[in-house]
Amino acid sequence: MKYYNNRTLSFADSYVAEGYTIAGPKENDGIYNGMFDLALDDDMFGQNTFERAERKMFEHAIDGAIAKANLVGRDIDYFVGGDLLNQIVSTSYAARKLHSGFVGLYNACATFVESLIVGSSLLCVGAGNVVCASGSHFSTAERQYRYPLELGVLRSPVTQWTCTGVGATILTKSNDGQLLPRITRGMFGRVVDFGVMDANNMGAAMAPSACDTLVQFFRDTNSTPDDYDAIYTGDLGKLGSSILVDLMDDQGYDVVGKLHDCGASLFRDEQQTYQGGSGAGCSALVFNSYILGMLRGGSWKRVLLAGTGALMSPTTSFQGDSIPGVTHIVEVSVV
Amino acid sequence: MKYYNNRTLSFADSYVAEGYTIAGPKENDGIYNGMFDLALDDDMFGQNTFERAERKMFEHAIDGAIAKANLVGRDIDYFVGGDLLNQIVSTSYAARKLHSGFVGLYNACATFVESLIVGSSLLCVGAGNVVCASGSHFSTAERQYRYPLELGVLRSPVTQWTCTGVGATILTKSNDGQLLPRITRGMFGRVVDFGVMDANNMGAAMAPSACDTLVQFFRDTNSTPDDYDAIYTGDLGKLGSSILVDLMDDQGYDVVGKLHDCGASLFRDEQQTYQGGSGAGCSALVFNSYILGMLRGGSWKRVLLAGTGALMSPTTSFQGDSIPGVTHIVEVSVV
Repeated sequence: MKYYNNRTLSFADSYVAEGYTIAGPKENDGIYNGMFDLALDDDMFGQNTFERAERKMFEHAIDGAIAKANLVGRDIDYFVGGDLLNQIVSTSYAARKLHSGFVGLYNACATFVESLIVGSSLLCVGAGNVVCASGSHFSTAERQYRYPLELGVLRSPVTQWTCTGVGATILTKSNDGQLLPRITRGMFGRVVDFGVMDANNMGAAMAPSACDTLVQFFRDTNSTPDDYDAIYTGDLGKLGSSILVDLMDDQGYDVVGKLHDCGASLFRDEQQTYQGGSGAGCSALVFNSYILGMLRGGSWKRVLLAGTGALMSPTTSFQGDSIPGVTHIVEVSVV
Repeated sequence: MKYYNNRTLSFADSYVAEGYTIAGPKENDGIYNGMFDLALDDDMFGQNTFERAERKMFEHAIDGAIAKANLVGRDIDYFVGGDLLNQIVSTSYAARKLHSGFVGLYNACATFVESLIVGSSLLCVGAGNVVCASGSHFSTAERQYRYPLELGVLRSPVTQWTCTGVGATILTKSNDGQLLPRITRGMFGRVVDFGVMDANNMGAAMAPSACDTLVQFFRDTNSTPDDYDAIYTGDLGKLGSSILVDLMDDQGYDVVGKLHDCGASLFRDEQQTYQGGSGAGCSALVFNSYILGMLRGGSWKRVLLAGTGALMSPTTSFQGDSIPGVTHIVEVSVV
């Protein structure tokens, strides 16, 4: 593919004031055990439908992030986010509780990074505080995209497990003299379709788009993987990640040792999720817990977060279309 | 409702280089007859499914806008847009044909104005040219949101008719000394839910959010309806528009004579669409044909375009939820 300069956006003042996470029981039983702000015992969250549970998780995560940042609702100018449900209803209905303007997004599992780039852009045109949130719920996604849960369909070994979780980030224009992680640069990726037809194998469908975005970003910014403490994709899964390593190698970039995947790192092997986690909540969970912790604790100075999304719908699969992928990227720095 | 200052965003350099429209046969047979760049004789557009026809309309409108602006594909940094289909697949699949980064949005029929605000913001953080597009197709929307077309269900007198059409706008950072219409200000609205349960009556569900956004905008900018040559909502329909006039009057704003609605003005009465047009393509069609023409021709100097969206899904209706509305607004000026 051809690369044209220069799509990378720069943000003068987009500080990460806070992050908040709410995770399901299986997610909290995984690798990041104990790192989430709230872990649910029951993924119904006291509601009568899974969809309402997902919505309540959004409401909780947004309120949690605002409170953790020592703000109140009226301080937040905009809420930017999305989810996997048709018409992004979890996000839209959660937005009813806020005084903030609402910017609804959909780019599948790339939605969280998309929200960080849009949110950072809004801070440059007049917004003061923005909350960015993205999430998913295993049980709502499974029955919308695949099969009724009660059917107990055998899962393919190349599948990922849609995680139950919502992550919310407060971006703010002013750091008040504090040393806060900053969203310094960002880029929305192109939609890339290599003709993968297997809706179970989304990692393979998304890996070419992840490669395309990473190469474009490195070229635009004249940087290399060595300039970063870590590069997180979300969510290629284990198979997709190994494909990405090969694709990047073909392009002359060695990412071994730098590359991690939010999905592949979410669950333990014994949890039988096969390729790992996925879902619009996955990178939101890992960024707002572990990655933000490493940046704030001083272990890391500069990371890349590349959100990957598979853009098909059940209808396009039924009509015989292949699966396009998209990858958006942000650079987060503590400087 | 309480209003908090100040959510309105300002854009230094967001020029409207071009607009392009493609409309279905019924739409071209309406009030704006002959004003669209391409009017289809057949809303299948040579494809074997309605969904693929909608996708092809997106591809055509984007290519048309780029060509009309004397640009080529590689000049466009970002494509910002969305549609009404689950997972916004018309937009996502059309994006495969572009070299541009993709920003997928969903805010129902407010998506077009949402794309103009996001696009204008991106021009302030490094993008040079952005294409904003939004669209809908009667036959894909009808069978996804309501009933199979073959069922021939009798329509309620409060319904609107989802229009078949896509509108695309090229926003550019530089006017090269030309007098071009500009997106000068914009605001994303709050999500407002007054408890309307009738999914056929979306105008009533959205009117309170339109009022909320207009009042917030007038307060933020210290302006009144008299400062504008026209105020277009899209798409409240006839009933929703008359509700908005009353709501604005309660707030002390007289909008009679200034207020027009993209949906209510799209079809002739004899076309039996009852409340008029709707759909993510409706305001995109009217803005990129008639409104842009009035601005470029010198008849108007300053207009407001307020995109209104009803954010429910079939699932939320089945689960007994009411219909939240959202309204985003842009000010377009020739100065």
